[in-house]
Amino acid sequence: MPRSKDVPSDRSIPSGSDFLQLDAADAPAGGLSDWLAQRLRLAIADGRLAVGDRLPATRTLAGELRVSRGVVTEAYQRLIEDGHAAGRGRAGTVVVAAPVTAPAPAPVRTRTADAPPGAVFTAEPGADVFDAVRAAPARIDLSPGTPDLASFPRTAWLRAERRVLGTLAATGLGYGDPRGTPELRRAVAKWLARNRGIAAGPDEVLIVNGTAQTLGLLAQVLRGRGVSAVAVEDPGSLGARQHLRYWGMRTPPVPVDADGIRVGELRDSGAPAVVVTPAHQFPTGVVLGGGRRRELMRWATDTGGLIVEDDYDAEHRYDRPPVPALRAMLPEHVCYAGSVSKLLAPALRTGWVLAPPELHGALVDAKRFTDLGSAALPQLVLADLMESGELERRLRQLRRRHRARRDAMIRAVDTHLPGAAVQGAAAGLHLTVTFDAGFADTDLAAAALAHGVKAHPVSWHRQRCGRPGLVLGYAASTVSGIEEGVAVIGKVLA
Amino acid sequence: MPRSKDVPSDRSIPSGSDFLQLDAADAPAGGLSDWLAQRLRLAIADGRLAVGDRLPATRTLAGELRVSRGVVTEAYQRLIEDGHAAGRGRAGTVVVAAPVTAPAPAPVRTRTADAPPGAVFTAEPGADVFDAVRAAPARIDLSPGTPDLASFPRTAWLRAERRVLGTLAATGLGYGDPRGTPELRRAVAKWLARNRGIAAGPDEVLIVNGTAQTLGLLAQVLRGRGVSAVAVEDPGSLGARQHLRYWGMRTPPVPVDADGIRVGELRDSGAPAVVVTPAHQFPTGVVLGGGRRRELMRWATDTGGLIVEDDYDAEHRYDRPPVPALRAMLPEHVCYAGSVSKLLAPALRTGWVLAPPELHGALVDAKRFTDLGSAALPQLVLADLMESGELERRLRQLRRRHRARRDAMIRAVDTHLPGAAVQGAAAGLHLTVTFDAGFADTDLAAAALAHGVKAHPVSWHRQRCGRPGLVLGYAASTVSGIEEGVAVIGKVLA
Repeated sequence: MPRSKDVPSDRSIPSGSDFLQLDAADAPAGGLSDWLAQRLRLAIADGRLAVGDRLPATRTLAGELRVSRGVVTEAYQRLIEDGHAAGRGRAGTVVVAAPVTAPAPAPVRTRTADAPPGAVFTAEPGADVFDAVRAAPARIDLSPGTPDLASFPRTAWLRAERRVLGTLAATGLGYGDPRGTPELRRAVAKWLARNRGIAAGPDEVLIVNGTAQTLGLLAQVLRGRGVSAVAVEDPGSLGARQHLRYWGMRTPPVPVDADGIRVGELRDSGAPAVVVTPAHQFPTGVVLGGGRRRELMRWATDTGGLIVEDDYDAEHRYDRPPVPALRAMLPEHVCYAGSVSKLLAPALRTGWVLAPPELHGALVDAKRFTDLGSAALPQLVLADLMESGELERRLRQLRRRHRARRDAMIRAVDTHLPGAAVQGAAAGLHLTVTFDAGFADTDLAAAALAHGVKAHPVSWHRQRCGRPGLVLGYAASTVSGIEEGVAVIGKVLA
Repeated sequence: MPRSKDVPSDRSIPSGSDFLQLDAADAPAGGLSDWLAQRLRLAIADGRLAVGDRLPATRTLAGELRVSRGVVTEAYQRLIEDGHAAGRGRAGTVVVAAPVTAPAPAPVRTRTADAPPGAVFTAEPGADVFDAVRAAPARIDLSPGTPDLASFPRTAWLRAERRVLGTLAATGLGYGDPRGTPELRRAVAKWLARNRGIAAGPDEVLIVNGTAQTLGLLAQVLRGRGVSAVAVEDPGSLGARQHLRYWGMRTPPVPVDADGIRVGELRDSGAPAVVVTPAHQFPTGVVLGGGRRRELMRWATDTGGLIVEDDYDAEHRYDRPPVPALRAMLPEHVCYAGSVSKLLAPALRTGWVLAPPELHGALVDAKRFTDLGSAALPQLVLADLMESGELERRLRQLRRRHRARRDAMIRAVDTHLPGAAVQGAAAGLHLTVTFDAGFADTDLAAAALAHGVKAHPVSWHRQRCGRPGLVLGYAASTVSGIEEGVAVIGKVLA
């Protein structure tokens, strides 16, 4: 009976430890403690063991190395004697000496992160521009795109996670359906039916890691079908444009006016697909008007065009009735993208996409080969929060909070930026102010940052020229922070 | 002072509800309750409201619609009277009638999932082959690649999550560093130093959604540099090959013998990169021998070749000393990929990659434009488990459990598959049995499945012909399941 050599018999003796890959077979005869102490010193010197690290329990390490416990105790004692380690009673033996020669970490440079604060805004925005903005120190952050994070429902999240872990079958922890867990796909389908007027089955829902991933997956699939351009609104999200371009798409700009995207110019662009934000255009905040909605849908049916509906903050509205999703009218031509980034927290990296039926399978493949599907536990927790009504409660609470902050920002703009035109205040998490004067809004943003206040220049979100301005997020700041931040901008401007 | 029309004044009156996008302005004069009842019936009929769904509290909905509470109460009452809904006391009003005309869900078909059980193995493996295998019903699952999921440390996970949520700053819930949280990058750097002999700083670590994502990101970056082929071990993982091919790479096969990959043939292939599993080759389980390690490193330095080290289950070893990672020797040429899929659970979708310095920035960009970085909470929980020593405890516990199962499988193979050669039993989560006879192992796998036992045919993981066999995972099954599963395979074979 042929057997390969590595089949163990009863006599097979495992030896060696994962810890520093120690193997007593490497030790010279009779010098086990010396050898072990030397290996430990080396690991401290080259940084593999850091100050504060605990050494393994003597019994554990001795067992793994198949040496007597005395060998390990003696080696640890030598380290204690020469000042590398210290005994800490029940906490065991801990490294206390700083490494003698730490390995030089490989220099890792981003492209704008090391620039002086102002250059974050005045330089051409690079791939890492939002990382650089985030990293720039500021007292008050009015960057758009983030809800009130201080009120994230931590207790409810933890309670839901306990329920999930209390009932989940072990197989639920294995590799899963790349489309997402059935639980979350069901909950999202219900949520969209209830809150966004979309009738879709759970099998039409694909769970993704946020809308950024949706754009990437979609671009891959479209590129595979020979598409090389996806039109975007202008002004429109710089981030979305960067994502599409990374995935090989041109992004022809289509102007936005008070009724939303100008469909005639979309038609003229010849682009076979377009990303739109119909419920609350980013960054202007206009709602796609009824006539334009019909025109856009006609464009899609006439030309076979694809509408990518980025429904990023539709739930946040204050002074106007809700607007149903385009997807509800025209499922064959609308790829709907939503997420919890503006509802719970961007750090959850959880969203969903409803593709037209003929793109669905290719998107699922793209998701599979991107990451084999999103992590299961956060999906199940979110499904629980949706099904229990917790997420609707959260939305109502957020809306009250955001409205108060929105009102504070409008008052502050009235007071401190009297020459500004305000747009998009009826809904969302930000408003846009523009100015008649002819100056570079990147300079304004840089000057504000130098005075401790962060906001986006409108020009970042434009491909064509337009009035200078700022996009001011209010949802994640306190009322006093908003007042002070806008006052600083007013001073800088004057 | 120019102002756009949507700036609210104090008199602005929000109205309308997200719930079904109801707006009382749509109601005919004097018929509010009728209108509301009718809208609810419609939503039940078209599936937007399902049986078991709770209607909003009357007070909430009345407030949102700016109608008197009596209007909503009356509408609900009508639904209760005509059998659509039922009052449930404190639980409110709940939908009880099945929808009259449910919308036909769009048919979503995968390519192998609908095939009869056996065809899962006998058909050419498609993109969704692992989904299909997972979906195929079976009494005993000996698929490789999954650790013991029943012992997932649920309590420790929840405790760590409570600690994380108790201390996390609100900004930690916003958009974050695409490389991963500093906490997890630090913890992984320590873990790798301690357990895999790799000295690397946290800035060299990139957190990803598992090794599948690593392969995709890397293939994107390499393709951008004109690389169109990544050599793979043969036999070698079908999954890894599928991922590389999806991302546009050819995968020239390089034979594996008892010492691991044959470097001479890698050199002959001319491929500028290779994916290897040096610590425990998949699926054969051989360890890359010392001479071969040196040869492989020489290949990399001579040719500027890239070694992708998939360290998928290096921590799981039973009868042999640990093998240090190639990355520890040659950081400029080795891209190291690890994950918690075999240590905790694949469903966590969390892993890490240490790229050669010159690829690092491009990989970070690829990660950013894939999903803006992995979700933060699971990263922070994992960091806590690593720093607290919980993960090392888990590993020790897993090793004991897996060893007992491995031993049971070897005994069962001895008894029921006396003609089989066993490979790779000294470490890992699976072993491989091969047979001298000339039959198709896909037929064997299909027949076993028909008798309720799942295992992978070795030929799936081969590009060139070889002896038929099965890859048998033991880590996720009980001892009695293993015994019965192997007995069934023995019967099928006889």
